[in-house]
Amino acid sequence: MLVYGRNVASELLLNNKNLVKKIYLQDGFDDKELISLIDKSNISYKFITKNDMNRLANGVHQGIILDVLDYKYYDLNDISLDDNFIVMLDHIEDSHNFGAIIRTCVAAGVQYIIIPKDRSVSVNSTVFKTSAGLVLKSKIIEVSNLSNAIRFLKEKGFWIYSSAMDGESYFNTDFSDKCCLVIGNEGKGVSSLIRKNSDFIISIPIKSSVDSLNASVAAGILIYGVVRNRG
Amino acid sequence: MLVYGRNVASELLLNNKNLVKKIYLQDGFDDKELISLIDKSNISYKFITKNDMNRLANGVHQGIILDVLDYKYYDLNDISLDDNFIVMLDHIEDSHNFGAIIRTCVAAGVQYIIIPKDRSVSVNSTVFKTSAGLVLKSKIIEVSNLSNAIRFLKEKGFWIYSSAMDGESYFNTDFSDKCCLVIGNEGKGVSSLIRKNSDFIISIPIKSSVDSLNASVAAGILIYGVVRNRG
Repeated sequence: MLVYGRNVASELLLNNKNLVKKIYLQDGFDDKELISLIDKSNISYKFITKNDMNRLANGVHQGIILDVLDYKYYDLNDISLDDNFIVMLDHIEDSHNFGAIIRTCVAAGVQYIIIPKDRSVSVNSTVFKTSAGLVLKSKIIEVSNLSNAIRFLKEKGFWIYSSAMDGESYFNTDFSDKCCLVIGNEGKGVSSLIRKNSDFIISIPIKSSVDSLNASVAAGILIYGVVRNRG
Repeated sequence: MLVYGRNVASELLLNNKNLVKKIYLQDGFDDKELISLIDKSNISYKFITKNDMNRLANGVHQGIILDVLDYKYYDLNDISLDDNFIVMLDHIEDSHNFGAIIRTCVAAGVQYIIIPKDRSVSVNSTVFKTSAGLVLKSKIIEVSNLSNAIRFLKEKGFWIYSSAMDGESYFNTDFSDKCCLVIGNEGKGVSSLIRKNSDFIISIPIKSSVDSLNASVAAGILIYGVVRNRG
């Protein structure tokens, strides 16, 4: 997989060198810090033209493209007893939203993010870029079936909180126990089966003239609502 | 100005008909609800080919493009005694962020958003689209100088809260008086002059490994932090 951008490169070279297979630099690339990291890394690199760079990357590459191993997803069994707050994304489709949610999760200290295999975002170049490389500091679990994952989590003592328009205000919700927060699809919200399997339906109080918030903004508000409540 | 998309069209035709000069529909457009609204509105429209539609809009138009009057910005003097919470954007540059912030403001009941004239987002087609037309439910004030605007607001009894990495946690901040929340530029944050003129510097508590959050996510977290604190 090709990923690009200076933040992504810096995160990879500083903390995840072993994932990088090779590096493409644009002719004239002169970011001293990154070049010194590349020199120290012993990873092979070559300079290519701007046109070739643009052809390789389908986004703003800032002069550096890295060929990296495919993302290795985590497993539900990796969740440890210390993990008390995890996030589940019920068929989020936009990679920009996924990247922004990863960034918020890492900032808030949420390690694990669960996503479904089908009809969902996955860890791709755009997600590397929009998470500013932070996808490497989070642990993404990909599962075939979200309902099974919820059953698994309930058995581990988690309470399932799904966000929807018609729930209790999160201002008044107690999140102090083991908490799995479910964020729904951009258009359709949390699916009815997941809703049915949830312990609580929670809402962000919004004015009646507004249909919904941007999914990554809503996730951010709720994640920090939980962090604040847990103290 | 050309704006597009079904949400935008619906918001305009339902609540802001007087802004619409004319409408372009893609051949075969068959959204019954919108067509009925157009029929009732007496606004002139014509059907054009998909190619022509794509040429007019530089985004996903969903078969409908509206030619509307340029956005009429509000003035600081429009702020009334009832407005106790306003948001100021210190040189936000990304129209997607601006659209998402507008959506959050309308949802949270924040009417006025202050932006600077130069080096800043303005109300354009992308903002119509990314705010899902909600820009028409908010009141955007454009000013030549943010510091003068801050002076004006202070005289009206507002306290100025700027967000930065090194402030007090917003969890512990009292926002119960008249509040102006300042959100900084995506890369540079709140400028030093605005910082100096602020009454409080507040932060979202984040893990040390993260530089910053997405600007619209950070805005959402803080706006709902204020709403929650004000009760």
